[in-house]
Amino acid sequence: MARYSPSLQNLINSLRELPGFGEKSAQRLAFHLLALPDDKMNAFMDSIVQARKLTKRCSKCQNFTDSDPCPICSDPSRDGSVICVVESPRDVSTFERMHEYRGLYHVLHGVYDPISGKGMQDITLAALFDRLSKDPSVKEVIMATNQTVEGNATALYVSRLLSPSGIKVTRLASGMPMGSDIEFTDDLTLANALKGRVDISS
Amino acid sequence: MARYSPSLQNLINSLRELPGFGEKSAQRLAFHLLALPDDKMNAFMDSIVQARKLTKRCSKCQNFTDSDPCPICSDPSRDGSVICVVESPRDVSTFERMHEYRGLYHVLHGVYDPISGKGMQDITLAALFDRLSKDPSVKEVIMATNQTVEGNATALYVSRLLSPSGIKVTRLASGMPMGSDIEFTDDLTLANALKGRVDISS
Repeated sequence: MARYSPSLQNLINSLRELPGFGEKSAQRLAFHLLALPDDKMNAFMDSIVQARKLTKRCSKCQNFTDSDPCPICSDPSRDGSVICVVESPRDVSTFERMHEYRGLYHVLHGVYDPISGKGMQDITLAALFDRLSKDPSVKEVIMATNQTVEGNATALYVSRLLSPSGIKVTRLASGMPMGSDIEFTDDLTLANALKGRVDISS
Repeated sequence: MARYSPSLQNLINSLRELPGFGEKSAQRLAFHLLALPDDKMNAFMDSIVQARKLTKRCSKCQNFTDSDPCPICSDPSRDGSVICVVESPRDVSTFERMHEYRGLYHVLHGVYDPISGKGMQDITLAALFDRLSKDPSVKEVIMATNQTVEGNATALYVSRLLSPSGIKVTRLASGMPMGSDIEFTDDLTLANALKGRVDISS
């Protein structure tokens, strides 16, 4: 005998396919969805349908947006000479939360990761190079991909391809995070922090 | 400026209301839902709609079921003289997984929990008493509510109300879980295990 009724089991199976869901969390969400009043359920369904319908990629920066070009790309107060290249739309929102960066973005929607079968053609690199070739005002590309093997490889690849263009390619500093202890810092981070040490002599 | 486009932010807000969801997990699920192909999306939506349409409560045991009475209640090989009272459909599936119990169930869909505003009328106690009054074959009610203040209070309440009926009311044993060390056992569990110690002299 199935542990739950067929329709409920089917719902649980379907929820288990969502990212970060296991058996327990799928069960919990299934019971929640069953108990939701009709109006809340409709609003929930509608938010998914609407987001899928309205959300597209900005033709300039490839970030998710309802309007094209996106609010950041169409903001005249932003500095168009700097493009910060990130892996995901989440990273854009993290940068924006910081209120320190006034340039533009380019969202790769992934990184070069041959092990997971993600090649250079699966991320928006072609759109980036196309954008750079059409826009001579860009002076610097900040590679803000994650500090991972894949993120570093992608950054290196871009820097090599752009070297004839004269555009400056930079990478976010790697080192010890604020508030961290040397004792608890992993070897790679410490090695990077040592390699990238800065002069503070006055 | 909103951190995401309006429709995407609306989806994230809507996902944040789900149980166990925070900002990060809601973002992750939102991006997943945006990227899902149309056919998978339809199957996902359909599993929710179908489960909500088909799932009802069994008129006997109140467990979720597609057919009424549910497969357990309509199984003639089950022992109808014992009813195991649990808080949720999840508990039924846990008992069934064990393959040790052959009686019937009654699902309360909650416990008496006045602090959260859940009174005796909000759980299926009336249906339980109604069921017991109509079925003289029931000899024992096992109160398998959780080992919490609320679960114990509900068990005690049922046992008091059933005392004139002559039906035996039992409670799952409380004690140290298998494989546990005394050193790491909390005081309440240890006190319960001591109180409920069993004679093993031969």
